[in-house]
Amino acid sequence: MPTPAADLPVVAVVGDGQLARMMAPAASELGQSLRVLAGKPDSSAAQVTSDVFVGDYRNLDDLRSVAHGVDVITFDHEHVPLAHLRTLQAEGVNIQPGPEALENAQDKLVMRRNLEKLGVPVPAFAPITDAKTARAFWDEHDGKVCLKACRGGYDGKGVWFPESVEHLEALVDELLDEAVELLAETKVDFVGELSAMVARAPSGQVQTWPVVESVQSGGVCAEAIAPAPGISETLRRQAEQLAVTVAEKLDVTGVLAVELFYYRDATGAEQLSVNELAMRPHNTGHWSQDGCVTSQFEQHLRAVMDYPLGATEPTAAVTVMANVLGGESDPEMPMRERVRAVWQRFPQAKVHLYGKDYRPGRKMGHVNISGAVTNPGDAADANPGEAADVAEVRRQAKLAANFVVNARWDDGYTG
Amino acid sequence: MPTPAADLPVVAVVGDGQLARMMAPAASELGQSLRVLAGKPDSSAAQVTSDVFVGDYRNLDDLRSVAHGVDVITFDHEHVPLAHLRTLQAEGVNIQPGPEALENAQDKLVMRRNLEKLGVPVPAFAPITDAKTARAFWDEHDGKVCLKACRGGYDGKGVWFPESVEHLEALVDELLDEAVELLAETKVDFVGELSAMVARAPSGQVQTWPVVESVQSGGVCAEAIAPAPGISETLRRQAEQLAVTVAEKLDVTGVLAVELFYYRDATGAEQLSVNELAMRPHNTGHWSQDGCVTSQFEQHLRAVMDYPLGATEPTAAVTVMANVLGGESDPEMPMRERVRAVWQRFPQAKVHLYGKDYRPGRKMGHVNISGAVTNPGDAADANPGEAADVAEVRRQAKLAANFVVNARWDDGYTG
Repeated sequence: MPTPAADLPVVAVVGDGQLARMMAPAASELGQSLRVLAGKPDSSAAQVTSDVFVGDYRNLDDLRSVAHGVDVITFDHEHVPLAHLRTLQAEGVNIQPGPEALENAQDKLVMRRNLEKLGVPVPAFAPITDAKTARAFWDEHDGKVCLKACRGGYDGKGVWFPESVEHLEALVDELLDEAVELLAETKVDFVGELSAMVARAPSGQVQTWPVVESVQSGGVCAEAIAPAPGISETLRRQAEQLAVTVAEKLDVTGVLAVELFYYRDATGAEQLSVNELAMRPHNTGHWSQDGCVTSQFEQHLRAVMDYPLGATEPTAAVTVMANVLGGESDPEMPMRERVRAVWQRFPQAKVHLYGKDYRPGRKMGHVNISGAVTNPGDAADANPGEAADVAEVRRQAKLAANFVVNARWDDGYTG
Repeated sequence: MPTPAADLPVVAVVGDGQLARMMAPAASELGQSLRVLAGKPDSSAAQVTSDVFVGDYRNLDDLRSVAHGVDVITFDHEHVPLAHLRTLQAEGVNIQPGPEALENAQDKLVMRRNLEKLGVPVPAFAPITDAKTARAFWDEHDGKVCLKACRGGYDGKGVWFPESVEHLEALVDELLDEAVELLAETKVDFVGELSAMVARAPSGQVQTWPVVESVQSGGVCAEAIAPAPGISETLRRQAEQLAVTVAEKLDVTGVLAVELFYYRDATGAEQLSVNELAMRPHNTGHWSQDGCVTSQFEQHLRAVMDYPLGATEPTAAVTVMANVLGGESDPEMPMRERVRAVWQRFPQAKVHLYGKDYRPGRKMGHVNISGAVTNPGDAADANPGEAADVAEVRRQAKLAANFVVNARWDDGYTG
């Protein structure tokens, strides 16, 4: 294990995915040492960090080993057993966010109950313990129902949209047989999905980012547009305030992402409803790496260390993040040649790769493009901060990300 | 050694200082694996990279080991023996920049002779082989003379400003006795110092950054202001074109920094003269980490891989970099508390630390502040791209950097 620099903090992160990987550059710049609890020595985060402990986040002794001598433990996912975290806390380990907060990111039912108590809007929901409670919920909500696993779901996994009450009942029977805890909630007929992100330090400081629009495809985030275009200033402020309220009332520390539905009620008024929470850097915050004074990764490391938080002004009129999700098959063209082609066409594209091998649907990277440069090939003439053409930046980001996936330009460009 | 991600490049960097350290975040984001040839296992760069080979850059076998299986070798300093590089090249290793180019960064006399041949302006110079040639140069230039070691100097080391011809002669005798190769050149009565930076790929693509003003203190860069304020558009373009010419004619690949004197000739016209060259990321380019679409570290890794180069538009009206140089003594306040105080006062300050222990005069880190936010405490009201108050941003960056050094606010602020 390397010697950390004298007098500088050591932060341990549990988890070895792209979020831990992307904390590493921020840690390096901040002069922090990052220690990673990785499941495998060649995982995404382990590839780029020097202080890697290979172990199991479900094993208390492994967690203890990683915690030894660090300033703070934090997470790249929310699946660490709470009992272990409480044990470590009792042993004096500084854990941010703490288990009380984290439970809300682990268990969707606990989260919904707690938010409801706080008066934070969530879709109507009910725990589902048998086919009968499921049918009652279906009837009450005219079949506008989705079924969710209380634990472990992400990126569209653990969410089902039953097509009939019989389908719902069959699903419930099958899943309860597999010991999956379930809840039902109403499907929201939303106008769009937003993500309100905030960082909070243990001593109470909070700092929000501009609210972004999250564009989903098949239950997975495909794009994030920062700031969210076409929403009213009132809604924007409501969403930011809602994220601050959730962070404060649930005592969240580090970065919190509040995924929101934005819909119109019967009177036509704009309304928000919470979909999910994540207590760590989040896919919808990746734009901040290239479009913001302080990225979510730097801010997370500052927040969990209880350092003052950084400024979150955007550095461009618009930044669009498009995910690189493994396609149906892996193209023959090597990844390095795909990246070359993207840069050839879009010199302003910021390509982030996670060092992951191909798998269909897998998050392998993302592309950020900022609206400072709206005409590729015409870069020298553009002014940063100029009113940006959101549709054009989205088009570029999606073309670039899709080329990295498919080695093909969706618009037929032949360079 | 970790397994690099399938199908992604491995770049080896010779050297373990802050420049190699700051390549690591860029490599991680690009999905590249960085291999570091480090002198010590806990050096600045080794702290934050997973693939570290501990060895000696003057040893051919160590260089060979590091080169094994990589896509390209590059450098964080220019002191690798050229003979070794030529041997490796003959063995098929891809070295960027190559030894022919690199010789110009190793030997100031070779560089001046080559630039003179190319018609690139340099101060009058002469090789100094004995006290007699030194006296002749002194007489010819009315005592406006500085003496330089041809090799190995940096940050004011290897540069002498003799106060009299006797002083010069004594210096020359002493240094020649120590087998230091010497040159003399005229002291330029400059208006300011500029740095023109460019990246060049092996296949010929070039991309410049905006020219910056470099403010030196005691022979060491103290500040860089991007873009350079108060110079004419003509001079700016001349400086950029000069950097491109040097890169092309000397066949430089990767990042090239051309340090320039800017002076007025007898007619009052603005003129440029080359002071030094560096063929790697450079202190005067650190601002690009936080103030530019593509940082010099990302660009260097793209250039040496012969990837298309990234856009270099600034993301703020002005960005100022202030160095954190070890002071006369190390303050009692721990580094982490100094950083805390800086962030408390300046949420927009981007603090970069190199993981180095204190030593007087040592480059331990730097602070970047962009002009997007001109009023601390008033951050929410500032617009990126607004005409920035350069003096105010400089003041903030210097206050922040000096606090990290001295644990004291130079303006008496008591927060």
